[in-house]
Amino acid sequence: MTSQTRTETDSFGPLEVHADRYWGAQTERSIANFPFGAQERMPIGIVHGLALVKQAAARVNRLHGLDAKIADAIESAAAEIVAGKLDQEFPLVIWQTGSGTQSNMNVNEVIAGRANEVLTGTRGGKSPVHPNDHVNQGQSSNDSFPTALHIAAARAVNDALLPALRALHAELSGKAQTWDSIVKIGRTHLQDATPLTLGDEFSGYAQQIADGIARVEGVQPRLYRLAQGGTAVGTGLNAPANFGPAVAAELADLTGLPFETAPNKFEALASHDTLVELSGVLNVLAVSLSKIANDIRLLGSGPRCGLGELHLPENEPGSSIMPGKVNPTQCEMLTMVAAQVMGNHMAATIGGLQGHLELNVFKPLIGAAVLRSIDLLSVGMDSFRLRALEGLEPDRDRIAALLDRSLMLVTALAPEIGYDNAAKIAKTAHHEGQTLREAALASGLVDAETFDRVVRAETMLGR
Amino acid sequence: MTSQTRTETDSFGPLEVHADRYWGAQTERSIANFPFGAQERMPIGIVHGLALVKQAAARVNRLHGLDAKIADAIESAAAEIVAGKLDQEFPLVIWQTGSGTQSNMNVNEVIAGRANEVLTGTRGGKSPVHPNDHVNQGQSSNDSFPTALHIAAARAVNDALLPALRALHAELSGKAQTWDSIVKIGRTHLQDATPLTLGDEFSGYAQQIADGIARVEGVQPRLYRLAQGGTAVGTGLNAPANFGPAVAAELADLTGLPFETAPNKFEALASHDTLVELSGVLNVLAVSLSKIANDIRLLGSGPRCGLGELHLPENEPGSSIMPGKVNPTQCEMLTMVAAQVMGNHMAATIGGLQGHLELNVFKPLIGAAVLRSIDLLSVGMDSFRLRALEGLEPDRDRIAALLDRSLMLVTALAPEIGYDNAAKIAKTAHHEGQTLREAALASGLVDAETFDRVVRAETMLGR
Amino acid sequence: MTSQTRTETDSFGPLEVHADRYWGAQTERSIANFPFGAQERMPIGIVHGLALVKQAAARVNRLHGLDAKIADAIESAAAEIVAGKLDQEFPLVIWQTGSGTQSNMNVNEVIAGRANEVLTGTRGGKSPVHPNDHVNQGQSSNDSFPTALHIAAARAVNDALLPALRALHAELSGKAQTWDSIVKIGRTHLQDATPLTLGDEFSGYAQQIADGIARVEGVQPRLYRLAQGGTAVGTGLNAPANFGPAVAAELADLTGLPFETAPNKFEALASHDTLVELSGVLNVLAVSLSKIANDIRLLGSGPRCGLGELHLPENEPGSSIMPGKVNPTQCEMLTMVAAQVMGNHMAATIGGLQGHLELNVFKPLIGAAVLRSIDLLSVGMDSFRLRALEGLEPDRDRIAALLDRSLMLVTALAPEIGYDNAAKIAKTAHHEGQTLREAALASGLVDAETFDRVVRAETMLGR
Amino acid sequence: MTSQTRTETDSFGPLEVHADRYWGAQTERSIANFPFGAQERMPIGIVHGLALVKQAAARVNRLHGLDAKIADAIESAAAEIVAGKLDQEFPLVIWQTGSGTQSNMNVNEVIAGRANEVLTGTRGGKSPVHPNDHVNQGQSSNDSFPTALHIAAARAVNDALLPALRALHAELSGKAQTWDSIVKIGRTHLQDATPLTLGDEFSGYAQQIADGIARVEGVQPRLYRLAQGGTAVGTGLNAPANFGPAVAAELADLTGLPFETAPNKFEALASHDTLVELSGVLNVLAVSLSKIANDIRLLGSGPRCGLGELHLPENEPGSSIMPGKVNPTQCEMLTMVAAQVMGNHMAATIGGLQGHLELNVFKPLIGAAVLRSIDLLSVGMDSFRLRALEGLEPDRDRIAALLDRSLMLVTALAPEIGYDNAAKIAKTAHHEGQTLREAALASGLVDAETFDRVVRAETMLGR
Repeated sequence: MTSQTRTETDSFGPLEVHADRYWGAQTERSIANFPFGAQERMPIGIVHGLALVKQAAARVNRLHGLDAKIADAIESAAAEIVAGKLDQEFPLVIWQTGSGTQSNMNVNEVIAGRANEVLTGTRGGKSPVHPNDHVNQGQSSNDSFPTALHIAAARAVNDALLPALRALHAELSGKAQTWDSIVKIGRTHLQDATPLTLGDEFSGYAQQIADGIARVEGVQPRLYRLAQGGTAVGTGLNAPANFGPAVAAELADLTGLPFETAPNKFEALASHDTLVELSGVLNVLAVSLSKIANDIRLLGSGPRCGLGELHLPENEPGSSIMPGKVNPTQCEMLTMVAAQVMGNHMAATIGGLQGHLELNVFKPLIGAAVLRSIDLLSVGMDSFRLRALEGLEPDRDRIAALLDRSLMLVTALAPEIGYDNAAKIAKTAHHEGQTLREAALASGLVDAETFDRVVRAETMLGR
Repeated sequence: MTSQTRTETDSFGPLEVHADRYWGAQTERSIANFPFGAQERMPIGIVHGLALVKQAAARVNRLHGLDAKIADAIESAAAEIVAGKLDQEFPLVIWQTGSGTQSNMNVNEVIAGRANEVLTGTRGGKSPVHPNDHVNQGQSSNDSFPTALHIAAARAVNDALLPALRALHAELSGKAQTWDSIVKIGRTHLQDATPLTLGDEFSGYAQQIADGIARVEGVQPRLYRLAQGGTAVGTGLNAPANFGPAVAAELADLTGLPFETAPNKFEALASHDTLVELSGVLNVLAVSLSKIANDIRLLGSGPRCGLGELHLPENEPGSSIMPGKVNPTQCEMLTMVAAQVMGNHMAATIGGLQGHLELNVFKPLIGAAVLRSIDLLSVGMDSFRLRALEGLEPDRDRIAALLDRSLMLVTALAPEIGYDNAAKIAKTAHHEGQTLREAALASGLVDAETFDRVVRAETMLGR
Repeated sequence: MTSQTRTETDSFGPLEVHADRYWGAQTERSIANFPFGAQERMPIGIVHGLALVKQAAARVNRLHGLDAKIADAIESAAAEIVAGKLDQEFPLVIWQTGSGTQSNMNVNEVIAGRANEVLTGTRGGKSPVHPNDHVNQGQSSNDSFPTALHIAAARAVNDALLPALRALHAELSGKAQTWDSIVKIGRTHLQDATPLTLGDEFSGYAQQIADGIARVEGVQPRLYRLAQGGTAVGTGLNAPANFGPAVAAELADLTGLPFETAPNKFEALASHDTLVELSGVLNVLAVSLSKIANDIRLLGSGPRCGLGELHLPENEPGSSIMPGKVNPTQCEMLTMVAAQVMGNHMAATIGGLQGHLELNVFKPLIGAAVLRSIDLLSVGMDSFRLRALEGLEPDRDRIAALLDRSLMLVTALAPEIGYDNAAKIAKTAHHEGQTLREAALASGLVDAETFDRVVRAETMLGR
Repeated sequence: MTSQTRTETDSFGPLEVHADRYWGAQTERSIANFPFGAQERMPIGIVHGLALVKQAAARVNRLHGLDAKIADAIESAAAEIVAGKLDQEFPLVIWQTGSGTQSNMNVNEVIAGRANEVLTGTRGGKSPVHPNDHVNQGQSSNDSFPTALHIAAARAVNDALLPALRALHAELSGKAQTWDSIVKIGRTHLQDATPLTLGDEFSGYAQQIADGIARVEGVQPRLYRLAQGGTAVGTGLNAPANFGPAVAAELADLTGLPFETAPNKFEALASHDTLVELSGVLNVLAVSLSKIANDIRLLGSGPRCGLGELHLPENEPGSSIMPGKVNPTQCEMLTMVAAQVMGNHMAATIGGLQGHLELNVFKPLIGAAVLRSIDLLSVGMDSFRLRALEGLEPDRDRIAALLDRSLMLVTALAPEIGYDNAAKIAKTAHHEGQTLREAALASGLVDAETFDRVVRAETMLGR
């Protein structure tokens, strides 16, 4: 022991902990046992979720005999964690025990260590506030940790994902309205097809995001169900009667989210189907965003040798000598993010399917995968909206030129001059490289006035 | 041309078709162009879905000028297809054009071919009923095919998946109740833990399936939305006004399912997020079923050297000389099915993310993957329920013996003799290979009467 | 019993089997126990693989006392199966016991049933040839079935996959050479970039396929290792000494492939890492083919409003009135196939990771997934090569026009007139919609002769 | 501008950078444009790979006219980065432009900034060492970044993955030898089966890892191929002739790994099949490790109510009152890691399949996914070996007791007393709960001497 450490103990014996740290022996032991790098740390949202559990539990335990001073100290220390003031005290990694026990103990130890400091002036230790007997009272890692996963996911959904989705939806809907009269060529199979408007295209994207919002909201009722109260195997042994509902009520109060106790605690410990379900919904979002970002980069391809219907905002230098070359970097970011979300979905699925009897021990994996996906999507959508969509501009000349060049409008001539004649004109135009108008007038089958009156893309919009 | 064939034509020219067949030139051409084997055929549910579209469209087209005799003939031929009478007329494979155009034409041709036979006595051809002009009137493959996918999936969900889920849920709930008083050892991390009842375990499974039903039902509102009416690019060009809502209403009438027209046709053609979402829900079901089947084979492991708490019904000969060896074949079937469903989910996801502009051209892949998953899960769950769950029996002696052998019950002694003494007894029992009772009485710290009064697993159930 | 059935028995008792069928009681029982549809049948390649095992085993068993007449009859019946003459005798599905026991018994029963017919005139039964005692002699499902999986995969790789890959590679290499002098605009980020040749692009595709061949060949040494000889748990109990090597040698003789006995039978029964590895290589092929097919449909997009650099062969009617619209149906087929292969890879992975102790019981799933993927890729590549690549034609005018229109060639002017002047010309051309030549001459900074001498894409190819 | 910042510029204009930082304007701009958190930083191995590229390129550029003083300064600064001295200078995240351009510029800027500091005393800037003109000379992000990915992956494979695999293989092989004579019950379908030794089981695991090593080594030849020299689109425009081979040779010299120039640069920029292939091999490793870790936790289940054949080392406190309960935390860590690796494989696959024409723009995603997987597997395997395998101990008494209790050994009696009598004894033992020996002696069919002579598991090992 040096002056820079203090001795902490667990049932394995004493261990030196850096004197500055609030954590105790079990945290220190886990650092040594799972030597992954700092980039693999347990997501801080899960730590905050655990701290919320401790805060809520202290409120309930007070009614079951926990000394008020201790309860106050626990609540206060937990609140500091939730506020992000002690983030550096949680060095443990995702890849630990599959029940998240060590992260639960990390939070217990830091709360005790901080509470003891406040109460006694000495950081750390187990007295007067004991990490297990007081902070973890009425709980087990087996119910606290999955509770924290639901809290963390629900908060991230409400604080980041849904706002990002709603802002994205508003932006896309706005574009759909603004560009509702810009008639352009449609493309199916990547082949020229009948026309639609640029607003039509963006209305489809907006619908995808609207549905995405509904999908996320559809999972929320199950996400608000908390495992707390199940303790070790789901029976609730060693927790007071109604501990689960009471803690859920306190958590609802603390977070403003309608948490409730899970209807079946055996399921809530032994499986994480709802997190896999949420992951599946994030997977759909990733699919939607891939489609949207891909379309926009395709429509923005060029400047001269691509489709060139959209101009993307230029966020960083492209080629210094090549004007108009704007790399669709936000599209690239978003489609990469989407691919990782799909990969995380597979990881969560594989973790979800391997529960054994009373406990699924892939909890940290599943939680970390889902939370990373939410974060990636939320930041990614916001960035894409701000830096790719807001400044997006149609190239009206190019759009009009392509439409004019297209041969698809020939269908409008059929009622006037017959199907066979119309087809003949199109075929000639195709082979001679003429516009439809040129070929039509050259054919002598239709005059200019008729052509201009009849062949109008804006009448082919099905409106 | 031989006497066994007749000549059919499309815009590419004439082609010989076997005289017995109802199909026409485009179907014949697709057979040659996509030479996959019969096992790769387009799922018949999609074909039936297309036939329902044709039947509904004929009803609506009648109001828009389609000759009544022709409309009748179309409806009648379509109804024969829906009834499964012409299944052998649909030889095309999944791996064709990504819009499903050729399967759409296959259905158009067979309906025309059959209708013409009924009306004229001559099979096939295009007169008086024309596959494009009449059967496909007001439609495009681009809206008909995704409509058929939603119809096929919605029917499979209602006719097979939900019934199988509900029956499975009832069986699991029944077991949970029946076995509610069978106290057994709990296991977390696959390690002995505090007790629960066998009914508790099965109540967790029942909850998983109950949630699965809710998840499926949550997708249905979006699944009932139909692309029909969008025609080629989503604008509805060439379809009568309100064609989409009218066809959806007829389809609701024909199927008894609450189909409605999609709120945005551009989205409905260009993306298949809802099918990917449904696939994600099937993925969760696969996860749930893996957990349940895995637990049951684990609890049924033995007969002598495993956990041995459950006896699985013996459906086929195991070892002829080795009594009691019952291979958990239904569990193995169900977990394999689950793995394929997860794989299909990835396939659907990859198809879903690659739409381009006005059309996603992975439609047959996505549809086939989702339908196969529904079928696999439905048949698999029914079989598992009938052949593994119904005859499942607890081995009460074994369950009791394991519980008795366990050391976890020592926690009940702590309030009587103190934590340290309780731990000492457990440690002695562990090292000496004694039961807890043996070690406790030998320790002199507790008498038999007290032990038997206090150490009772049934009081550790948190009830 | 009716006149149309005969009675077969297993240790569960008697069972009626249709009189025409060669199979026996265990097959009949499995049909009832796993009621999936015909589309879910065990791939016939696995059945043929099992028959090869029986044929090879009969040869070896003859040396260990199997009556020559019986051995002859077994070999002969097995050869009929391998030749595809009895394919309809294998009705069992993929979704059965995870060891493939029932399909192994199906093959044992059919061989016995056919051998008995040949020897006695009476179809079926167990005498003189007994399905277990003779056909299965020295074997267990646990080693025969994985042996059959390796045989089936190795044969499909050699007979279908590698030939398809080599033909595809030859076609792509040929195109790379033929089109080596067609200079075209390059595109990175889907944005115009410096030029390359069309042959360069196809040389990249050819390299992908060449690497794909090397990848497949890299797995073969492990694929040729056979589990046979491990019997029930890997020890080889009940098989003669050296049964594994001897059977492998006979299989090598029968198939012409260098099969050898697996170095460790415990691994060969309990895990299927090599099939997962092969699946991973198929996954890379799917990735490569997606890239190639996507590029070709992108380059073929148009005819007027896309890139339009390639003309795809027209295999079926596109739009009757819209000339030049050729849907890239073979590209769509191939990218859908690729997505399913990726999905199957996930299924195989999930099956592979869930082995338990001495046996992995996801064998049929893994085998079926890998075989389907090989088949899909083989047929898909052949079809794509024949129907999309062979008839593929560059649009030299369009390629030249795009190159001419591009502004990227401005970089060639920099050494002549300075970087800043070159950039100024490009900027002007971009804003005025001029070609580079127009803007350059208008600028007065360069004369026509110099421009035409300097600005030549063919000098920018890095050759 | 404050005293704490300096002004840096790019073609977009000036930008304030913190005065302590070595980076320049493009890095600063990317920080703002892609606002993901620090946990999403580009893996440092990729940064080091880029620095190696710059070091090697400076060596080659020196031969093509790069001023020696500048070249020296570049080499020296790059070497500092490779040595890890400037890791904090690379704040950019994975989710940026898909070509990795911004990370390439980050490295260019830091090297220039550091080189300028060394040469002039002033940190940052573009003179005398210019990030583009000098550090990036002869390169493009499009070839440098994928080169860095191959370097980073190859180094991680050689420095971490293969050593971890080899150490794991040695440990497993050692266990296989040490435990070669511990006869135990085999289990197939999780059901009791014929015996084998504990060493046999571990020999299977060792074989899995030996094959894993071969699989990794099989990818290396392709991994050593570098894209460098392709510049923007693969033609090598603006790079000196033979720049690619020369840089590869320098990289081989710098790293000691046999890097060589890629045979086709178009492929090397436009696709990342080899990284997807490597990812597929990591996926197989994840499958293997899942099997091994799952088996060990299953064999270690208990202490009283599981299989209990192995004792896992106790690394952290389990239950304080429950002796012998050792949670298999290292198994849990390793199976979670494996699941994430499988997920990353899916992400890499999805990124790999979406290249467009001359460039795949999912480079950072693919690289980060593969590198994270290598890191997770390497650290995970080392930790598992040290903390779970090294201290693993068989429970010989338990293993013997289970073997004795088993009924599978009855097969050894059949040759002595006939199959039917043997089966009868087993059946009686099963129903009466007797050991085989008890039932055999009670049957009167065999005497004790004969039983003990004949029924010996050690003769059933197929040796």
